[in-house]
Amino acid sequence: MKYSISPINNKKYKIPNEISDQILIDSFINKNKNKKVVVVQGLGFVGAVMSIVCANSDEDYAVIGVDLADERNYWKIQNINEGVFPVVADDPKIDLFFNNTITQNNFLATSDPYAYSIADVIIVDINLDVQKHKNDVGDLINFDVNLNPFKKAVLTIGMNCKEDVLILVETTVPPGTCKKVVKPIIEKALSKRGLSTLKFSLGHSYERVMPGPEYIDSIKNFYRVYSGINKISAEKTEIFLKTIISTKKYPLTRLENTNATELSKVLENSYRAMNIAFITEWSRFAEDSKVNLYEVIDAIRMRPTHSNIMYPGIGVGGYCLTKDPLLASWSKTELFNSKAALKQSISGVQTNDKMPKFAFDFMRKVFEFKSLKKIKILLLGVSYRSNVGDTRYSPVESFYNYCTNDNAIVSVHDPYVTYWEEIGIDVSKDLYNILSDNFQLIVISTGHDQYKTSEFVNFLNKKNSLKIFDTVGLFDEKQIKLISQKHKIKVLGRGDI
Amino acid sequence: MKYSISPINNKKYKIPNEISDQILIDSFINKNKNKKVVVVQGLGFVGAVMSIVCANSDEDYAVIGVDLADERNYWKIQNINEGVFPVVADDPKIDLFFNNTITQNNFLATSDPYAYSIADVIIVDINLDVQKHKNDVGDLINFDVNLNPFKKAVLTIGMNCKEDVLILVETTVPPGTCKKVVKPIIEKALSKRGLSTLKFSLGHSYERVMPGPEYIDSIKNFYRVYSGINKISAEKTEIFLKTIISTKKYPLTRLENTNATELSKVLENSYRAMNIAFITEWSRFAEDSKVNLYEVIDAIRMRPTHSNIMYPGIGVGGYCLTKDPLLASWSKTELFNSKAALKQSISGVQTNDKMPKFAFDFMRKVFEFKSLKKIKILLLGVSYRSNVGDTRYSPVESFYNYCTNDNAIVSVHDPYVTYWEEIGIDVSKDLYNILSDNFQLIVISTGHDQYKTSEFVNFLNKKNSLKIFDTVGLFDEKQIKLISQKHKIKVLGRGDI
Repeated sequence: MKYSISPINNKKYKIPNEISDQILIDSFINKNKNKKVVVVQGLGFVGAVMSIVCANSDEDYAVIGVDLADERNYWKIQNINEGVFPVVADDPKIDLFFNNTITQNNFLATSDPYAYSIADVIIVDINLDVQKHKNDVGDLINFDVNLNPFKKAVLTIGMNCKEDVLILVETTVPPGTCKKVVKPIIEKALSKRGLSTLKFSLGHSYERVMPGPEYIDSIKNFYRVYSGINKISAEKTEIFLKTIISTKKYPLTRLENTNATELSKVLENSYRAMNIAFITEWSRFAEDSKVNLYEVIDAIRMRPTHSNIMYPGIGVGGYCLTKDPLLASWSKTELFNSKAALKQSISGVQTNDKMPKFAFDFMRKVFEFKSLKKIKILLLGVSYRSNVGDTRYSPVESFYNYCTNDNAIVSVHDPYVTYWEEIGIDVSKDLYNILSDNFQLIVISTGHDQYKTSEFVNFLNKKNSLKIFDTVGLFDEKQIKLISQKHKIKVLGRGDI
Repeated sequence: MKYSISPINNKKYKIPNEISDQILIDSFINKNKNKKVVVVQGLGFVGAVMSIVCANSDEDYAVIGVDLADERNYWKIQNINEGVFPVVADDPKIDLFFNNTITQNNFLATSDPYAYSIADVIIVDINLDVQKHKNDVGDLINFDVNLNPFKKAVLTIGMNCKEDVLILVETTVPPGTCKKVVKPIIEKALSKRGLSTLKFSLGHSYERVMPGPEYIDSIKNFYRVYSGINKISAEKTEIFLKTIISTKKYPLTRLENTNATELSKVLENSYRAMNIAFITEWSRFAEDSKVNLYEVIDAIRMRPTHSNIMYPGIGVGGYCLTKDPLLASWSKTELFNSKAALKQSISGVQTNDKMPKFAFDFMRKVFEFKSLKKIKILLLGVSYRSNVGDTRYSPVESFYNYCTNDNAIVSVHDPYVTYWEEIGIDVSKDLYNILSDNFQLIVISTGHDQYKTSEFVNFLNKKNSLKIFDTVGLFDEKQIKLISQKHKIKVLGRGDI
């Protein structure tokens, strides 16, 4: 007997051996007569929100979200059908949009591939992961892209879909995937089923979702790039996107083929990853030359051409920047036999991956710890980004592991996270309660707004002498002055304070 | 007997064995009684323009420009004193400002270090060069920073200046230079002269000059970062900058020390150089995956956070981006004993340096030339940037050399350049005249507006079958379609057309 537990409401669901939601789905469709059916494959950080965006579009869609009946995913389906949204975010529009789908009864979740057979549009929002292999000191040695789970999901679509379906891939894939992987799989499956292989449409359009207070708007009110494997696919993709995105304000851009949009997505994420790696390297130089890099960056950012220069920090996290440059590198060798070097991008990932280890070593050095054995440390923030509860590939994870491997006693706080899935521990949400414990070292590991308040700084200054390590440049000059009267504070990316 | 020839009016000046402008300077000062004296050291692309900006400030300054009495520089002094400005640019304000100085008689040029002895402010605008060592295929093997000419120039100031002078360094220097190089030289020289070493001020503030139609505004109406070796130096620098820059609209940013501003300058240029290297690498991948990278970049640029992503091209030129990352690398080892890696920045320079060689190889490949022997080639544009006549470190220079080394017969055109100093050849300015020759291959090597006109495209299409190589993505889709009806056109950074 297998179970799937919801981290949202802690409910434990038994996973059935066999899924058969056909009656449920038919009845749902019956209630949504004459509506086009949109099926979203994958109910993660993108798919779940994409589903409610589609169900709240100007066009009247019946939306079905599909995910696997396994431990990691089955709870999402049950949560949704019980009226609990599987993603927590600061955006009030999430609740609004989800509640609308309940009122209108136009959103259903299921594990049954039967859903694909009645879909007019299928949106692919599943993961495509990269397996990184690192050595002990955090160097990226090599990596694999295992396309099999992705291919399997696409095959499920092909084995069930209508022959004239529109398949819209939103997953970040190695450039070339729609043409060289998705298209042949669908064609082969349709052909096997005795259906025409000439009638389906296949488009690619990547989202630029930003979990946080503008979650919905980052899908609905933002620029989109799209393409199709042929002209009619591009047309149909455009028509569909126009029904869910505010394209008057944020015009769509059509690129000439799916290679181009796939490349565009990994390129823009590689750009960001590389820009972070760049500033990471300079922060080492700033420390050594006793320069406050945050001040320097603020000065440079005044130039409009340089306004996106990044701040230093503990590392790069999240689902995209940590792997997308590698997808491109894999694609060029495996799908295009291209000898293009993507040195800047790959070395960007390598540099970024080493940031938590550097932060750890820096901490030991500047606070003169020979070992962290029995040292009580509090990490403030486990999310990879400020003001968001998303711990996927968070750099704080590696940092935490370095600390515990060095036998430190580590507690963690995050206002947005209850349970830290990757580490398997509970996370305190009550800042002032956990601060009442006696820690020797407090690490600002995520730049949540809660830690920027004067209330927090005042509270800190009531405590006895502490070591404080700001890895994200959270405190301003005034706060640092105040804190340093009482405590020893060090900031990553700037010279001695 | 040595001469210095002006490339502006072709006038040949005999360089005197001894310079003694004391009478001239005293008389100039006499005419500018009660004015503060600003001396600008170096009359190149920055110093010459900075001089007339100072002479046109709200404060009434008497400005003296100083440069060396050698073949490369002496003509500038003579040109200025004869009413000819030594820099050509599209900015009408240049003429306006220079003519004002003639009317007001408040700008003089000289080679005589005596000028420093009467200066209240000395602005250092001289070069600080990096010597790159490359192998045959254009790889950067190693590099030297020779500080000696810079040190010598600073020493000349120290041997002549008043003890309470304000020295403002604007030269891009390795971080640490003001504190560790300039300050000790000045102190030692003052002390040798029996003067106080405690009264001079030393500030650092870097310009962000952009030769072209906004030349003056890029100095006068733009953000500035500054610092001083001590508080009073920073104060005096601020007071001075406020008299020449529109600081109400473009507020000044003070950084805590000169290391910070020096680092800031090389960091911001390294950032740009690295961003170009990044896109260079992706353009290779785009070519192999048959993607039009220009279209992709246009799509990505719609994101405000990605609006500064660069276009591919033939290479990086100009005085700054080609060397500034190396200054930082030199500084960290030589001045700070820092082990910081600046891999992204150094490899950025390396990648960029190889761009002309790649463009050359690409051209031979796509047009199927086994050799260029006796092939007649026309290069359109020799400047490193569009709509500017500046050939310093132009990537077209390397490209030209690869072509001629391969025995091609190369002609060059540039609307902004009469004589190509680095190569030592005349440059045609008459586009339609030179096009009347029979070329087999036309290379767009700089993106001047003149080549974007429909007039030009129509003219091209009257010619017999040509090979056209667009290295900068100059033509739009419509122009390419038109051209490709008649000619074979290839574009760097995009798949087959």
